[in-house]
Amino acid sequence: MIIDCHGHYTTAPKELADWREQQIAALKDPILNPTKASLKISDDQIRESLEGAQLKMQRERGTDLTIFSPRAMGMSHHIGSELTSAAWSEVCNELIHRCCSLYPENFVGVCQLPQSPGVSPKNCIPELERCVKEYGFIGCNVNPDPSGGHWSDPALFDKDWWYPLFEKMVELGVPGMIHTSASCNHHFHATGAHYINGDTTAFMQFITSDIFKDFPTLKFIIPHGGGAVPYHWGRYRGLAQDMKRPPLKELVLNNVYFDTCVYHQAGIDLLLKVIPPENILFASEMVGAVRGIDPESGHHYDDTKRYIDANTTLSAADKQKIFRDNIKHVYPRFKI
Amino acid sequence: MIIDCHGHYTTAPKELADWREQQIAALKDPILNPTKASLKISDDQIRESLEGAQLKMQRERGTDLTIFSPRAMGMSHHIGSELTSAAWSEVCNELIHRCCSLYPENFVGVCQLPQSPGVSPKNCIPELERCVKEYGFIGCNVNPDPSGGHWSDPALFDKDWWYPLFEKMVELGVPGMIHTSASCNHHFHATGAHYINGDTTAFMQFITSDIFKDFPTLKFIIPHGGGAVPYHWGRYRGLAQDMKRPPLKELVLNNVYFDTCVYHQAGIDLLLKVIPPENILFASEMVGAVRGIDPESGHHYDDTKRYIDANTTLSAADKQKIFRDNIKHVYPRFKI
Repeated sequence: MIIDCHGHYTTAPKELADWREQQIAALKDPILNPTKASLKISDDQIRESLEGAQLKMQRERGTDLTIFSPRAMGMSHHIGSELTSAAWSEVCNELIHRCCSLYPENFVGVCQLPQSPGVSPKNCIPELERCVKEYGFIGCNVNPDPSGGHWSDPALFDKDWWYPLFEKMVELGVPGMIHTSASCNHHFHATGAHYINGDTTAFMQFITSDIFKDFPTLKFIIPHGGGAVPYHWGRYRGLAQDMKRPPLKELVLNNVYFDTCVYHQAGIDLLLKVIPPENILFASEMVGAVRGIDPESGHHYDDTKRYIDANTTLSAADKQKIFRDNIKHVYPRFKI
Repeated sequence: MIIDCHGHYTTAPKELADWREQQIAALKDPILNPTKASLKISDDQIRESLEGAQLKMQRERGTDLTIFSPRAMGMSHHIGSELTSAAWSEVCNELIHRCCSLYPENFVGVCQLPQSPGVSPKNCIPELERCVKEYGFIGCNVNPDPSGGHWSDPALFDKDWWYPLFEKMVELGVPGMIHTSASCNHHFHATGAHYINGDTTAFMQFITSDIFKDFPTLKFIIPHGGGAVPYHWGRYRGLAQDMKRPPLKELVLNNVYFDTCVYHQAGIDLLLKVIPPENILFASEMVGAVRGIDPESGHHYDDTKRYIDANTTLSAADKQKIFRDNIKHVYPRFKI
């Protein structure tokens, strides 16, 4: 069984985007504010949106199940208020639940949190609990920068700000995937800079803080192959050493996992060489940030299973950990 | 001959830091403002600061010359006003000039620009010209975020903001090394996140803009091995392709160079595999961000020459390009 831990519902029916557009219009004219019930998407529409995309690719690429969450770019926590984000998150999470209910063999849910700049992440707890307890979701996406590129809220190591959410994640047994969203800062291209910078930034916040001393069982997935981290693994080992912090293995590798969303063979080979296989989770982020076919390989850039299959240094047993076995340690609610 | 294109004067005599401290104190009490002449550092002090550090390491590691600029963290363009930055840059650049004059075989200068948040980079032109014409400097460090982690000024593709400086760089024949400085945003650890994020961010700004169409001979070095870029080379090729931009080779590789400040063998091997050798410049950033000895190798993390020497895929001729030959294309004012 091959589990892709990083997929977003990027192919949702157009009605979802229309609903969001109306919600944004309502920020200026509250009378326009759409009710949740006004979003009409049929089961057939959902089937159609998945059959020709994620499900087709699962079959073609030989993967079995995707840990599935709302579109990352769509979260856009910086838009509107806490209420905007709450309604939008509910709508998106409910749609993920419907996908998972229609295709229980193919999808397991992870929720978007109703984060909002300047608002404590503690306020996300009710939606997290609802998704986990009512919908059977197994994780959440944690945006380290709900301001969308201004990085104006407290960092992950801020105890007053983040710890209530982390406590609840531990209590529920759900990991968080670090994932920024759209950028409203002109410096940062979302998928080319803001996502990757968010991954790198979060990792460094883990190195310099005692989050995992305070929460020994809290787990985070850093997507996009860990941002810049594995490529600079020597730098991070050296920085931790210069700062008299424990070795990275001890400091973060009981709690941090990297996915395999790295879209070329040399990148995957580095990841598999540098990071212990126990800390890597298979992922492709399909259908996601990079959708084309690589003229150098003739295959989709994001068909990451091919790179892992073609890697010659890792044993079959270690690849099995990456494709499947590690999931049970990271997502304890997921009964494989 | 082996040229290290990325060294900062991190070992300057304490008098420099004292002067800066006084300058910062003067922001609250202008009467304290130090004159340039009040900074007293003797030639012997400069010799002493270099002999036991950069020069010793050049000898030990078998490198010959360092392209040398003021301490990157010290630039801290976010502190004070344009005038603060102007005086501080002059002081720092003059000290670099003295290092290069004392050891003309070992150092060639690159200047700090007197950038300041909210102030057009055009205002840096006089100091750039002074350093190039009077001191024989061959390049400049360009901070894509003088706000120190708030990313509040215009991006590199903003024509009104940046193009006058780029025009002058082209006219003078000097490249820019993209280099952020200290971070005053609690999210970003300077050497672990802000530097690397700055590199990645700048590269993506190059991909999405026409800077190199407008300035076909403008050259930038992206340090720290290009941030996250080579590790995610497939992602960047794919993003450019999805955006219907030209292939990266055509879009940026006539203008962008990556240094080799990657502090482990696997990272350097990836860099040397993925990026054409014509676009790589040898560098170590010693004495810099990571100063310890790697227990896994028994050598300094930042002794990057060892990794290149140990790399088995690149030919001796290609390594020679990285160690020396490419310099003449990137720094045309430097007569090797």
